[in-house]
Amino acid sequence: MTAFDDTLQRLQARAEQALAACLPPVAPPAARLKEAMRYAALNGGKRVRACLVYATGTALGIPLDRLDPAACAVELVHTYSLIHDDLPCMDDDDLRRGKPSCHRAFDEATALLAGDALQALAFEILARCESARRARMTERLAEAIGAQGMAAGQAIDLAAVGRTLSEGELEDMHRRKTGALIQAAVMLAAESAEPLPAGWAAALSEYGAHVGLAFQIIDDVLDEEGEARTLGKTPGVDRARGKPTYPSVLGLPAAKQRARSLRDRALESLSPLGDNGRLLADLARYIVERSQ
Amino acid sequence: MTAFDDTLQRLQARAEQALAACLPPVAPPAARLKEAMRYAALNGGKRVRACLVYATGTALGIPLDRLDPAACAVELVHTYSLIHDDLPCMDDDDLRRGKPSCHRAFDEATALLAGDALQALAFEILARCESARRARMTERLAEAIGAQGMAAGQAIDLAAVGRTLSEGELEDMHRRKTGALIQAAVMLAAESAEPLPAGWAAALSEYGAHVGLAFQIIDDVLDEEGEARTLGKTPGVDRARGKPTYPSVLGLPAAKQRARSLRDRALESLSPLGDNGRLLADLARYIVERSQ
Repeated sequence: MTAFDDTLQRLQARAEQALAACLPPVAPPAARLKEAMRYAALNGGKRVRACLVYATGTALGIPLDRLDPAACAVELVHTYSLIHDDLPCMDDDDLRRGKPSCHRAFDEATALLAGDALQALAFEILARCESARRARMTERLAEAIGAQGMAAGQAIDLAAVGRTLSEGELEDMHRRKTGALIQAAVMLAAESAEPLPAGWAAALSEYGAHVGLAFQIIDDVLDEEGEARTLGKTPGVDRARGKPTYPSVLGLPAAKQRARSLRDRALESLSPLGDNGRLLADLARYIVERSQ
Repeated sequence: MTAFDDTLQRLQARAEQALAACLPPVAPPAARLKEAMRYAALNGGKRVRACLVYATGTALGIPLDRLDPAACAVELVHTYSLIHDDLPCMDDDDLRRGKPSCHRAFDEATALLAGDALQALAFEILARCESARRARMTERLAEAIGAQGMAAGQAIDLAAVGRTLSEGELEDMHRRKTGALIQAAVMLAAESAEPLPAGWAAALSEYGAHVGLAFQIIDDVLDEEGEARTLGKTPGVDRARGKPTYPSVLGLPAAKQRARSLRDRALESLSPLGDNGRLLADLARYIVERSQ
C-alpha cells in the first residue's frame, strides 16, 4: 500500500464517520424515511467528493474537522442525486453499489422523499458550519446543483437518449451533470480559507473543472469495459440505453486519452500551489486510473 | 373590496413578479426543465407563504424589497413540494390549481428534476440575499423542510393512508407537513430584522405555529366541503384515499372549531406587537375564513 492509498483510506473513513454523525438517527418521526436516508448515504461509496474537500483543505492548511461540513454536504447531495437518478421515471436502476437501489430496498415514495430530505440536510449542514463564508458556500453549492448545474445535466442526459451528441454537447452535459458538483467540492474548501494567495482560487477552480470532467469520462469508460463485480452495477448499461457517452462518441482509446489529458491539465493547474498541491495531484491521478 | 383585500392583492402580485424574476428564463441549457419550473411556480397560487413573509416584515418595519428573497424562497419550496407530491408514486394527482399537474404537462422525470432544481434555487436565493443573517435564514428553511419537518410530514402522511390516527398524531403530521414551512415564512422575515424587541421573536414563532396548523385544518375542511370550481382540484379526494384528516378524525364542526380557536390563539400571540401586528392578524383571519 502506498502512502497515498493510506491517506485515501483515512479520508474515506473520516467522511464515512462524519456522514454517519450528521444523518438523523433512525427514530420517530418518520423513522423509515431516515432509515432510507442512511441506507443510501452510508453504503460504501468511494467518497471522491469528500476527499476532494479534504485534499483541497489540506493544501490550504485548514484542519480536517473544519472541513467535515463541506465534505458531508457534497456527499449528501451526491447521494440524493443517485437516489433520484435510480427511480423508475429516470434511469430505473435496481442496483447501486451492488445493493438494491433505495426505491427497491424501500419504495418509490420513500426514496423520493429521502432524496429531497438529503438535499435539505446538505444545505442545513453548510449553513450551520463555522466558516465566516458559509452563506457564500451555500450559494456555491446551490448553483452547482440547480437548473444551470447538476439538474440541467440530468435533464440533458435524459433528453439525449437515442440521439447523437457532438463532443461539445457531450462535454457540456458532463460538466453540468458531474463536473459542477466535483468543482464545487474543491471550491467549498477554498471558500473556507479565504483570503487565498493570489491566483490560487483560479488554479483550484480550473483543477476542479478538469478533474470533474475526467471523472465522468472514466465513469463512461468503466461502464463500457469494467467488470460488474468491481463496479457494483451492470456494465454496458449506458450503451444499451442509447445514452451518448465518451466511448460511444469518441471511441474507447480517444476517450481514455481525453481523460489522461484532462488529468495532465489538472496537474498543471496546481503549479501555483507548489508542494501544497501534492495530495490534490495524487487524487487527480487516482480519479483517472481507478478501476471502479 | 376591503383595504385588506387590496393589500393582499398587492402582495400577491408582488410575490408573482418577484418569482417570475428569480426563476431562470426558458433558454438552454435544459430549456424544458426551466419551462417546467416556471409552469409549476407561476400558476396563480394564493401566495399565502410569501404574504406571511411580507406581512411579518411590514410589522417589523422592513422594506418590501428586502423581503423578496425570503418570499420567493418559501414559495419555491412550496412549489417543489407540490410537484413531488403530485407524482404517481406519491398522491398521483392529475390536476393542480385547475391545470394539469407538472408531470402531466411535461413528464415524470422532468417534474422530478424541476422539483429538485426549485429546492436548490430557494437556497441559492436565500444564501445570496443582503441580510447579514442569511446563513441563519438558510439553516432555518432547511430545518423546516427536511427530515424533521416537511419531508417527515409527507412520509407520515403516506404511511397513514388507511390507518386511524389519534388527534395528537394528526396534529404532529400537519405541523410538520404544512406548519413548519408556514412558520418558517414568518421566522425568515423575523431573522431579517434582528435584533427584535424583547418577546417579539417568541410571539411571531407562536403566531406562525398556530397559523400553520390552522391553514392545514382548513385545507382538510375545504377538501371535504369545497367546490371543485373554487378549489381547482377534486374535493373529497383525501377521504377517498383513506387519508386521516381533521374532519375524518374530529368531524367537520369540531375541525372548524379547532381552526377558529387556533386563529384566536394566533391573534393573542400578536399582542406584544400592538398595532404593528394588524396585517398579520388580518392574514390569520383570511387563512381561516378562505374558501379556496
